[in-house]
Amino acid sequence: MASVQIRAAKEADCGDILRLIRELAEYEKLPDQVKISEEALRADGFGENPFYHCLMAEILPAHGEPQGQGIGTKIIKKVAEVALDKGCSQFRLAVLDWNQRAMDLYKALGAQDLTEAEGWRSFRFEGEAMRELAGR
Amino acid sequence: MASVQIRAAKEADCGDILRLIRELAEYEKLPDQVKISEEALRADGFGENPFYHCLMAEILPAHGEPQGQGIGTKIIKKVAEVALDKGCSQFRLAVLDWNQRAMDLYKALGAQDLTEAEGWRSFRFEGEAMRELAGR
Repeated sequence: MASVQIRAAKEADCGDILRLIRELAEYEKLPDQVKISEEALRADGFGENPFYHCLMAEILPAHGEPQGQGIGTKIIKKVAEVALDKGCSQFRLAVLDWNQRAMDLYKALGAQDLTEAEGWRSFRFEGEAMRELAGR
Repeated sequence: MASVQIRAAKEADCGDILRLIRELAEYEKLPDQVKISEEALRADGFGENPFYHCLMAEILPAHGEPQGQGIGTKIIKKVAEVALDKGCSQFRLAVLDWNQRAMDLYKALGAQDLTEAEGWRSFRFEGEAMRELAGR
């Protein structure tokens, strides 16, 4: 069986992180939304007051076990550990409504669909709208 | 006309911040979801690596102008300024689907409804589910 190790990301992982972000965006059919560079990932995640934290899954593939290593579950469990250690009372994930496999996994692990249960919607301000608001 | 000043929150504002969080939760019909204390607000927002940043609107009421000072718009404009200054490419707001007034304002200011446009849903892990995931 494949061995999966979850660890905190290092600055040297930023090239792989960007590749994974792009692969996810392709899967989500939103490839145009990836505007970040490897440089920005380094600056945002590994400066003094990081904008994000990141976990990496390292996989050692094994024969006869091409998929189904439960990487998603292992990462979510690690996020729960880190969140509790930091004193968080909850954490949230954003998911596209056609991604049934992801939604099924999150529900099986105990998550609640807030959009369905309470009616939460997500609004985004970006680019031109932000500059106009800021008068720039 | 009433004068509105937007400024960064100070630690001494945490009592008012908690009161405003509670008033918002009442309006959102979700008062049971406010579990944070004033102490936690102080620790989370005013330590070395703050978990949140907060803007306050200070209002000097004037005769014959009981409401409609555009506080929401002013705060969102300030958020856009701060976000651009910090190098953010976007910012997001969560809103309940029955809160038409808020959604109309966000759209009028240039926001896109990501739940409607792309199908984003919000999932939440909390309490018992988090502890179970972390094996605690």
